[in-house]
Amino acid sequence: MRLSQYFMPVLRDDPKEAEIVSHRLMLRAGMIRQEAAGSYSWLPTGFRVLKKIEQIVREEQDRAGAIEVLMPTLQSADLWRKSGRYDDYGKEMLRIKDRQDRDMLFGPTNEEMITDIFRSGIQSYKDVPRNLYHIQWKFRDEVRPRFGVMRGREFLMKDAYSFDLTAEAGQHSYNKMFVAYLRTFARLGLKAVPMRADTGPIGGDSSHEFLILAETGESGVFFDRDFHDMDWSAFDIDYDDVAAVEKVVTTFTSKYSATDEKHDAVEFDSRVPKDKQLSGRGIEVGHIFFFGDKYSKPLGCEVQGADGKKVTLQSGSYGIGVSRLVGGIIEASHDKDGIIWPEAVAPFHVGLINIKVGDAEADATSDKIYKALQGKGVDVLYDDRNQPGGAKFAAMDLIGLPWQIIIGPRGLKEGIAEVKNRKTGARENVALDQIVGRFTK
Amino acid sequence: MRLSQYFMPVLRDDPKEAEIVSHRLMLRAGMIRQEAAGSYSWLPTGFRVLKKIEQIVREEQDRAGAIEVLMPTLQSADLWRKSGRYDDYGKEMLRIKDRQDRDMLFGPTNEEMITDIFRSGIQSYKDVPRNLYHIQWKFRDEVRPRFGVMRGREFLMKDAYSFDLTAEAGQHSYNKMFVAYLRTFARLGLKAVPMRADTGPIGGDSSHEFLILAETGESGVFFDRDFHDMDWSAFDIDYDDVAAVEKVVTTFTSKYSATDEKHDAVEFDSRVPKDKQLSGRGIEVGHIFFFGDKYSKPLGCEVQGADGKKVTLQSGSYGIGVSRLVGGIIEASHDKDGIIWPEAVAPFHVGLINIKVGDAEADATSDKIYKALQGKGVDVLYDDRNQPGGAKFAAMDLIGLPWQIIIGPRGLKEGIAEVKNRKTGARENVALDQIVGRFTK
Repeated sequence: MRLSQYFMPVLRDDPKEAEIVSHRLMLRAGMIRQEAAGSYSWLPTGFRVLKKIEQIVREEQDRAGAIEVLMPTLQSADLWRKSGRYDDYGKEMLRIKDRQDRDMLFGPTNEEMITDIFRSGIQSYKDVPRNLYHIQWKFRDEVRPRFGVMRGREFLMKDAYSFDLTAEAGQHSYNKMFVAYLRTFARLGLKAVPMRADTGPIGGDSSHEFLILAETGESGVFFDRDFHDMDWSAFDIDYDDVAAVEKVVTTFTSKYSATDEKHDAVEFDSRVPKDKQLSGRGIEVGHIFFFGDKYSKPLGCEVQGADGKKVTLQSGSYGIGVSRLVGGIIEASHDKDGIIWPEAVAPFHVGLINIKVGDAEADATSDKIYKALQGKGVDVLYDDRNQPGGAKFAAMDLIGLPWQIIIGPRGLKEGIAEVKNRKTGARENVALDQIVGRFTK
Repeated sequence: MRLSQYFMPVLRDDPKEAEIVSHRLMLRAGMIRQEAAGSYSWLPTGFRVLKKIEQIVREEQDRAGAIEVLMPTLQSADLWRKSGRYDDYGKEMLRIKDRQDRDMLFGPTNEEMITDIFRSGIQSYKDVPRNLYHIQWKFRDEVRPRFGVMRGREFLMKDAYSFDLTAEAGQHSYNKMFVAYLRTFARLGLKAVPMRADTGPIGGDSSHEFLILAETGESGVFFDRDFHDMDWSAFDIDYDDVAAVEKVVTTFTSKYSATDEKHDAVEFDSRVPKDKQLSGRGIEVGHIFFFGDKYSKPLGCEVQGADGKKVTLQSGSYGIGVSRLVGGIIEASHDKDGIIWPEAVAPFHVGLINIKVGDAEADATSDKIYKALQGKGVDVLYDDRNQPGGAKFAAMDLIGLPWQIIIGPRGLKEGIAEVKNRKTGARENVALDQIVGRFTK
């Protein structure tokens, strides 16, 4: 993409309304624009990051055997009255009347709707287990939306829902999502510590939140330093191997970790030596629940068992805050100059800077490298604007692409370009005829 | 995908509520489920088709130089008051009050918001031309939603917005979208005839609708039979070549075509010989508008021109009904047994039917072919359920995958499988060791 033909409205100054670094950087880098309290438009580079995160989330859901569907944003109030949550949910639920005066709402979550869909589509025990998910915009009318996309009102969530014949089988479904979440966050370059957590308005007995550490996190967190030494890589696993899946979950739940709502200071002291006790603040990026028949019972989600008797299904739900992750990753990965994108979610892989637009050789060489990289399928943002070099360097650091290629008359005389790693700051001179190979392995 | 582990709730009988064939077939094939009047959940196969159409639309927008963004579903009423459309839009606009009693609305379209975004992100004439688009759920509170996803209230739309310095440049932007639409619909296997059309609540002077012919269409259409002989293939074009783009538009607008709102019987008679006059009904799948400064003026969307003077930008908007296209394609492509998907948008490329589940050889051979096709990246839906062959054949015809591979004991004795083309009905015996190669070229 040529920056001269793109839309990336970078701000020179820090916007006043931004209290935290991710919000500030997203506004400054021209990734988002506020449309209403807690509601944002995703401008081109922000949209690219959002889509990349969404795709990684999707791939890991699919790998764990979940099946993608898509439910509408607006829901009828009827199902929520059946489950008893219509009144429970309070003012966070955005209630709407349509022109026929019917009660609608903007879905804050989808337990009722998916349970009703599944109920109407199945007959026997052969139709389970299943896990259905969707990635859709939700709305929660927070009293005080803040921190940009971290705590918005309209936000993109992946929510999955499992249906099983028995609580034991349901536990395996829960464990699979637990492992899928570890894999997902690892691919996003994050350490998201699973913690015992409150179930809130979703309900049920068993629940884990996945939190990344950041000073601006909304939850206090307490955990064992040993978490840092665990294997957080996106390990391979056979999801049908019940014992292997359970073993990963056991490993990641055997050490103490809890959010403040569930924290038990006595237990913390007894289980974790003082010098390994860590506490701080965390951002919730995922939350999984097992709630048995809480929704399937009132909504009549049952199948005929092998013995002919009706069985009410056992369910869990599994959420990832896709739009929130954009901010969460920035909170975890930035420096004083701007964002530092992990390669997996960067809006472009390489930024190509022509520092002397108008110079025939600089233009020709930059154009040639741009086209060659594009031809090889490398995502390049090419700064071909006629602007001072300093402004271009600052903008490129701000938007945080993993690599920069810098082309200027001085290097060209020696047949070289400068390649900069955004994360380490390391700079290297690379011969012009080696540049493309460098980024295509 | 193994059907035994999928979620495709096929209905045996025609649902009573469906008045038209696409709605009936989508419900019967388990592609969608109604959640409220004019609001649908997309079940797994329906979702796959929706995503494939979305992706083709996206690729053709990108190719024409449009840049993808994403605006929220809910909008503040303020911008609509500025443009004067807040009151104009009537009851079709779903108005909402949030907990702070602020006036919000579920966006039926985005002219105001994108104009405001663009205004705030640009400075000079160097920042145009641009075309920004998004693919987002919209809501229009129709009095009488009907025909399934063809006339829903919550629907997925691609809407693009162009910004130019002059009306002449704006015309080229309009022409590019015109050509991109021809390409898009051609890739979807559709002939969508461009017709002069009313501009309705969007406004402006110049407007074309793209309509596919179907008895259930909401508009009467009148056109020259010569359209049938035009080149509807997804021809290559250099979008920067103003004359070449204009030539395509001229070709497709030189023949008479109009919806009933714009139809002129006298002109029709004078321009089209009687034996070439066609009329019928059409489904609108795309609509493009050029409206100059209708929105940029009240919203102050202007740049500094080369001479230092302020210039108000010239704009157009360009919509494609992505979710409506799912129904539209079925209206154009089905038979008495069910849907006939064009290859480009089929939920799976091949249906693999094991007609004798439990037979060791049939199971082993089917499994092997399934894995081999998957390994080669072919999308396969594998009917491995223990059900009678007749039900399996009927379901596979109903859901309309382009190809079927049928494995049974009789064929296995001769070392063959049957390959059926859903569209032509042609059947062919293919040696087992040739099957995979057949679908991977």
